[in-house]
Amino acid sequence: MPNLTLAEAQQIIDGATKKLEEVGVPMCVAVVDPRGDLIAMIRQDGTPWRSTLICQGKAVASAAWLRSSGELTENAQSPVSRGLMAMLDGRMIPGQGALPVFRNGEIVGAVGASGGASQQDEDVARAGIESAGFSPSP
Amino acid sequence: MPNLTLAEAQQIIDGATKKLEEVGVPMCVAVVDPRGDLIAMIRQDGTPWRSTLICQGKAVASAAWLRSSGELTENAQSPVSRGLMAMLDGRMIPGQGALPVFRNGEIVGAVGASGGASQQDEDVARAGIESAGFSPSP
Amino acid sequence: MPNLTLAEAQQIIDGATKKLEEVGVPMCVAVVDPRGDLIAMIRQDGTPWRSTLICQGKAVASAAWLRSSGELTENAQSPVSRGLMAMLDGRMIPGQGALPVFRNGEIVGAVGASGGASQQDEDVARAGIESAGFSPSP
Amino acid sequence: MPNLTLAEAQQIIDGATKKLEEVGVPMCVAVVDPRGDLIAMIRQDGTPWRSTLICQGKAVASAAWLRSSGELTENAQSPVSRGLMAMLDGRMIPGQGALPVFRNGEIVGAVGASGGASQQDEDVARAGIESAGFSPSP
Repeated sequence: MPNLTLAEAQQIIDGATKKLEEVGVPMCVAVVDPRGDLIAMIRQDGTPWRSTLICQGKAVASAAWLRSSGELTENAQSPVSRGLMAMLDGRMIPGQGALPVFRNGEIVGAVGASGGASQQDEDVARAGIESAGFSPSP
Repeated sequence: MPNLTLAEAQQIIDGATKKLEEVGVPMCVAVVDPRGDLIAMIRQDGTPWRSTLICQGKAVASAAWLRSSGELTENAQSPVSRGLMAMLDGRMIPGQGALPVFRNGEIVGAVGASGGASQQDEDVARAGIESAGFSPSP
Repeated sequence: MPNLTLAEAQQIIDGATKKLEEVGVPMCVAVVDPRGDLIAMIRQDGTPWRSTLICQGKAVASAAWLRSSGELTENAQSPVSRGLMAMLDGRMIPGQGALPVFRNGEIVGAVGASGGASQQDEDVARAGIESAGFSPSP
Repeated sequence: MPNLTLAEAQQIIDGATKKLEEVGVPMCVAVVDPRGDLIAMIRQDGTPWRSTLICQGKAVASAAWLRSSGELTENAQSPVSRGLMAMLDGRMIPGQGALPVFRNGEIVGAVGASGGASQQDEDVARAGIESAGFSPSP
């Protein structure tokens, strides 16, 4: 399975951080591999502690489903989604704020953000992905 | 992160207890720090055992979200809320009855009550917070 | 099942607090009923967050086994002890620092302390129990 | 409770990374606050996925006990250690490879590393802490 390198994950975080200056809300940003395991993570000063858990959970959802975590909300009450959430002890959150990372049509990771409104979270994830030359869709 | 001292937590509990004489229903009252860890807790005689768990869960919710736990009920079925509940093994309850504690606009803890109707629970938490000179809002 | 009242639990905590002035180490003290559910709990300023969990776990062990939690350490690796710990998600700790509370030979609760050396923890629990006129043995 | 800032956490990670060039084994490095919540984390290319969990677990142990996680191994089978591990779902690992971070004698966080031999892990954590001007002991 091809993965983001740490250097690439840090470029994504740098791009997300730049976007965050504009957004003006402190956030956590997590970059995970296609299996949902962390590659890099930051929590900006002043971000609530809950966001350290939520940003990872959303990134795992995008990695698991190869799509925007926001698109998963519609089916979040389905047995499949609830079963998977339970198997993972809640560590997969099908809520807006994360996007998968594709390179040449192949998933190489996912990025989750938490701390702002959920659209802001997603915007920050997208900015990070695109600024590093990747795409949130195949 | 500034925390309530034990002396302050006990003042809050004293104020809540005074309010409980008026309400006339026995309750549990928990005071937690901004991370959701207990500082002080009481269970009045005759309060059901379930309330010892519920008052803490509601206080953790207020600490995590920096707002009234009752305001969280509307989104309690959201993926973020369910994911966080599961990650915390249910030890965060987004139901009415807890309020955050602010000093000079900064969160220093949260207070949860359980045993009465949920509005009564919240009233008791509020009475404790305000009688000790703190505010349930920034 | 006869229980400590809240007033009695607070007398125990007052006695433990007096002992803590002498010991000179900040601690958490939890008073639970014979079922292991909290009646009252305090965390002194400067006590590590882990102690909020540990004092309760030790009190539950004393309530479960009707004896000093320190006496349980010898068999802490037994299948029964490990099974019970697992069923309770670790929320029963067979380690020194808690004592049961008896009145007229009948258990009415348990007291756990955490924050010092384990003998200090137990001494504080004992001081609280005895100062309130109860006994740590039948 | 005073916390490391993100900028300080990143200095620690930079120092750890420099040390890793010398050690020659890829690792994960996690920086947590005194409560054990992540501030920043990196996984170097080629580090096994298990290390993403282990580095965090060891950092939480150092944060919880305010000491080297390696010093905790001797008592890792104690009821207190096992109880706390279970309450935290294993997310506290009393094994060598993490150190607390002190500033002016006060804990401000902890650093855990995983991927090499456990002494190497600890050396990397120490190098990060000291290169950023902090101390692993009070």
